[in-house]
Amino acid sequence: MDPEVEDIRVAVSTVIFSLRTPRPGDAPAVVLPLVKRTRDPFEGLWALPGGWLGACEGLDAAASRTLGETTGLAPSYLEQLYAFGAVDRSPTRVVSIVYWALLRPEEVSDVENVGWFDAADLPRLAFDHNEIVDYALWRLRNKVGYSRIAHGLLADEFTLAELREVYEAILDRKLDPANFRRQVDTSATLIPTDRFRTGSHRPARLYRYNRDVELADRGPLSRSPETSVR
Amino acid sequence: MDPEVEDIRVAVSTVIFSLRTPRPGDAPAVVLPLVKRTRDPFEGLWALPGGWLGACEGLDAAASRTLGETTGLAPSYLEQLYAFGAVDRSPTRVVSIVYWALLRPEEVSDVENVGWFDAADLPRLAFDHNEIVDYALWRLRNKVGYSRIAHGLLADEFTLAELREVYEAILDRKLDPANFRRQVDTSATLIPTDRFRTGSHRPARLYRYNRDVELADRGPLSRSPETSVR
Repeated sequence: MDPEVEDIRVAVSTVIFSLRTPRPGDAPAVVLPLVKRTRDPFEGLWALPGGWLGACEGLDAAASRTLGETTGLAPSYLEQLYAFGAVDRSPTRVVSIVYWALLRPEEVSDVENVGWFDAADLPRLAFDHNEIVDYALWRLRNKVGYSRIAHGLLADEFTLAELREVYEAILDRKLDPANFRRQVDTSATLIPTDRFRTGSHRPARLYRYNRDVELADRGPLSRSPETSVR
Repeated sequence: MDPEVEDIRVAVSTVIFSLRTPRPGDAPAVVLPLVKRTRDPFEGLWALPGGWLGACEGLDAAASRTLGETTGLAPSYLEQLYAFGAVDRSPTRVVSIVYWALLRPEEVSDVENVGWFDAADLPRLAFDHNEIVDYALWRLRNKVGYSRIAHGLLADEFTLAELREVYEAILDRKLDPANFRRQVDTSATLIPTDRFRTGSHRPARLYRYNRDVELADRGPLSRSPETSVR
């Protein structure tokens, strides 16, 4: 074996997407938490939460641990996104296994040294983290078309207008309300409740999603020992 | 930094799917190439083609290089599948970045020490490679439902029956020919040609897929420097 392979190190990073409504009545925007780097390389720049993979922990466990240590966040489900390994992405050779998760707005808590940024308006981040966020956003936009992933950003009960606003925030474009309602009605993934959102507008029926359906199907990996290590 | 992180090494492996028709007239089956291990660990068992990541090469480049060195195969497009990093997947700590690709049957060539195996009937493989193949098959089955990925296994021109047999091989179940034809007609991704397949059956029109459409959309990563390193 080539001895130079010893010089490659493995890290994990996590992209957490949530929604934030700047002011009541505003449309929500996709936001993500970043951590300010306190040492070189890239001291002073914002970076994705993460850290080194431990010699005795699996990838999933490392992603959960480093996310908790840096942000205090503990999403119920982290999905592996992609491995980034370009030679020049860091001054030393680092392969980063990147995870992502969605957090409902009520699960977001403010933690010292963590900033929440609008995904569409990021500063220059450390390493290749701008590229990683772009890729995660692209995957989110793709996935929202063929899965129920938008529900991962919503409270348990929501109006169709709120669901549409999630899609609009992810896709970064306006959707026709009547068309959207028709598509949701035919997809049959929502269960109407007897409750209504009341306020300054006409009362709107609240829906919930079918809890019998997995938010994301990991396929054979959900049975993998990897997920239960440490 | 924890010094134990130095003990983790990075490898790449590749799952190549193709189709093989055991005898003329038989339905095709999904097959993949494996390499027999000539040293410990797992000496004598079959394994996915792969090798160590070089200190100065990107992940994509390492996947192409190791695949070429072990099998002589050079698919036009390798897609990153998943990173496998369970603590106990190898006697030493190895994180494997796994790639996958589809090869058309005419691109398959026989190479010494390489065996082509029916994906549905594999022996016990080295490391966690059975689990990796299961995951790749699951992704292939999922992806065939919402993408044009089946075309990666077909010759340039094909009959609708041949396309249906690709879907049947991937999904491992029979599809209704009339329903299948209707779905293909409405999807508008195929271009009918003026040519017909003649033989023992009624002549069947040949189709080709629209070359203006990318076989797989890599999104922002297709512009990444990673893909052009080495």
